[in-house]
Amino acid sequence: MSRVYNFSAGPSMLPLSVLKTAQAELLEYKGTGQSVMEMSHRSKEYEEIIETAEADLREIMNIPDNYDVFFTQGGGYTQFASVPLNLMNKNNKADYIITGQWAKKAFEEACKYGDARAAASSADKTFSYIPKTTREDFRKDADYVYICLNNTIYGTKYNTLPDTGDIPLVADISSCMLSEPLDVSKFGLLFGGAQKNVAPAGVVMVIARKDLLGNAMDITPTMLNYKIQADAKSLFNTPPCYNIYMAGLVFKWIKEQGGVEAVYKNNLKKANLLYDFLDNSKMFKGTVVKEDRSLMNVPFVTDSEELNKKFIAESQANGLVNLKGHRTVGGMRASIYNAMPYEGVEALVNFMEKFEKENG
Amino acid sequence: MSRVYNFSAGPSMLPLSVLKTAQAELLEYKGTGQSVMEMSHRSKEYEEIIETAEADLREIMNIPDNYDVFFTQGGGYTQFASVPLNLMNKNNKADYIITGQWAKKAFEEACKYGDARAAASSADKTFSYIPKTTREDFRKDADYVYICLNNTIYGTKYNTLPDTGDIPLVADISSCMLSEPLDVSKFGLLFGGAQKNVAPAGVVMVIARKDLLGNAMDITPTMLNYKIQADAKSLFNTPPCYNIYMAGLVFKWIKEQGGVEAVYKNNLKKANLLYDFLDNSKMFKGTVVKEDRSLMNVPFVTDSEELNKKFIAESQANGLVNLKGHRTVGGMRASIYNAMPYEGVEALVNFMEKFEKENG
Repeated sequence: MSRVYNFSAGPSMLPLSVLKTAQAELLEYKGTGQSVMEMSHRSKEYEEIIETAEADLREIMNIPDNYDVFFTQGGGYTQFASVPLNLMNKNNKADYIITGQWAKKAFEEACKYGDARAAASSADKTFSYIPKTTREDFRKDADYVYICLNNTIYGTKYNTLPDTGDIPLVADISSCMLSEPLDVSKFGLLFGGAQKNVAPAGVVMVIARKDLLGNAMDITPTMLNYKIQADAKSLFNTPPCYNIYMAGLVFKWIKEQGGVEAVYKNNLKKANLLYDFLDNSKMFKGTVVKEDRSLMNVPFVTDSEELNKKFIAESQANGLVNLKGHRTVGGMRASIYNAMPYEGVEALVNFMEKFEKENG
Repeated sequence: MSRVYNFSAGPSMLPLSVLKTAQAELLEYKGTGQSVMEMSHRSKEYEEIIETAEADLREIMNIPDNYDVFFTQGGGYTQFASVPLNLMNKNNKADYIITGQWAKKAFEEACKYGDARAAASSADKTFSYIPKTTREDFRKDADYVYICLNNTIYGTKYNTLPDTGDIPLVADISSCMLSEPLDVSKFGLLFGGAQKNVAPAGVVMVIARKDLLGNAMDITPTMLNYKIQADAKSLFNTPPCYNIYMAGLVFKWIKEQGGVEAVYKNNLKKANLLYDFLDNSKMFKGTVVKEDRSLMNVPFVTDSEELNKKFIAESQANGLVNLKGHRTVGGMRASIYNAMPYEGVEALVNFMEKFEKENG
């Protein structure tokens, strides 16, 4: 087998050791005579799997006890509805910061359910920066302020959280979850789809301050009701059992790496290697202002559409796959999530160097 | 490895050959250098997987062209909300037949969104039969009539569909999907969770007559909007890619068996073996009226709580697992989905025979 370096924005690479464990356990999980895929979600074997996954996530993210943690379905997009349905529950108002397509879609979904307002936006420069805000930018009676912490398409990241005063901060952390330490206590609610840093697509993790739950709108579908999901410990109905098992293997892998702090150090090393090259290249350049750069998603361009195309085709042929950028930004994008090894970024930079020499 | 016979109501057994293929392909799918779990859902490799899965499902279920087919998330329970949100759209009225816990929960969810009415129920006898209805039992202006085609907990199944005249019939087919031929054209909409007959939990298949879609309520979360999911061919957002891949392997397995007709013959053979034993046993008896018996879920009891307990414990120790009945019915339940081999039912019946002799 020759594994490629997969720079896809998600779903993307999983740690090889995790895949090997999954493969070894696929026909039979630990002497149970069955695959995890076949296990009753009410069996004691499966209960141990899901409880361990939650406990490990709590441990590696250092999640305080006054937060509920649960696994749910429907991708981040379902959360775009669940957030207002559950949390826009005092004054039916919420403020959104629009830092890209996903934040915008979350905002549009919230407009269905109440008075959602765009408090700031970086649309003026194709979302290539994080807008600066102060407490005064938010309505005092907003039920929450919503941000997308890392913007997959545009390659930006909040390096400083907005000051929202007493207003709960809600964040979509899909594309940066577990990539660096995060102070959960600064948030009212966090959610993250699995398919970047955690597991195969099909499971979302929600981390919610307990006092914010329990007051969902009457029209909330039962399955989107946070309080019901949290109280049932992710087992209100049949959860995506195998996806949660995979998430649990990744959480254990993070612990083996030395925790999120150690993973973060490696992510910094990887991102610095690539950004340093971009900053010194005559052919390639990054598209994001330096202080707002993402550690996970690195968009870059040349000044020629033709060169971009050639680069994408040749890199693909060299085992560096899915480097095509999102159509709204153009050019290239390297997503270098936790499971992308340092050697993968090294291979990319070496290839870029060679390409620049040959085509410069 | 010693595989057990797993009689779980779901998640439950998958065909061994399917698990072996999944295991063989886990680290690398067909020379792509990556696992299906890691594939971009927008890649041409993955598009082929999902398109083939849909095409195979259309083929084995003989789904007419005027029906949309798509894969979605959130389990059957999310469909309990999606159905009224999308289809209770002309007169805001729907009639439900209550044949068990799941039909009841679907009904309760619909009450949130409009005038839902219980047109018939078999609650009077612990849902041990399917209520007889005529066209007159349904309101002429109901937007749809809802049934649960096979009732997992109670072991009943519609052997004759209710006559609803021109009113579209909506059915939850989670626990009988692909177990026997079904004339899709008789339904307005069908949905089925994967975790009984199709794939690991985390994906739901929806089959909907095209003319019924496109008029969802304004409050419908985007992800629950059938028209949006259908038009995007299950790729509106990141689908549960790996679960769909597994479903595709199971569809191919069904084709290898000779299609749904052949699978049905085997299911009849399995169910007859068990029901014949129950009908002749002095110790064990089925709980369902004969004409409404399910081919998939077979509840049975003895007249002693103590014997039930002993049977469950000893069968478990003999590699016949998850035979405990649902708490609302008590006793035992053998779920014998498509992937349960004939030999598994044979082993169960042999064990029951032996148990009856030893304890009779």
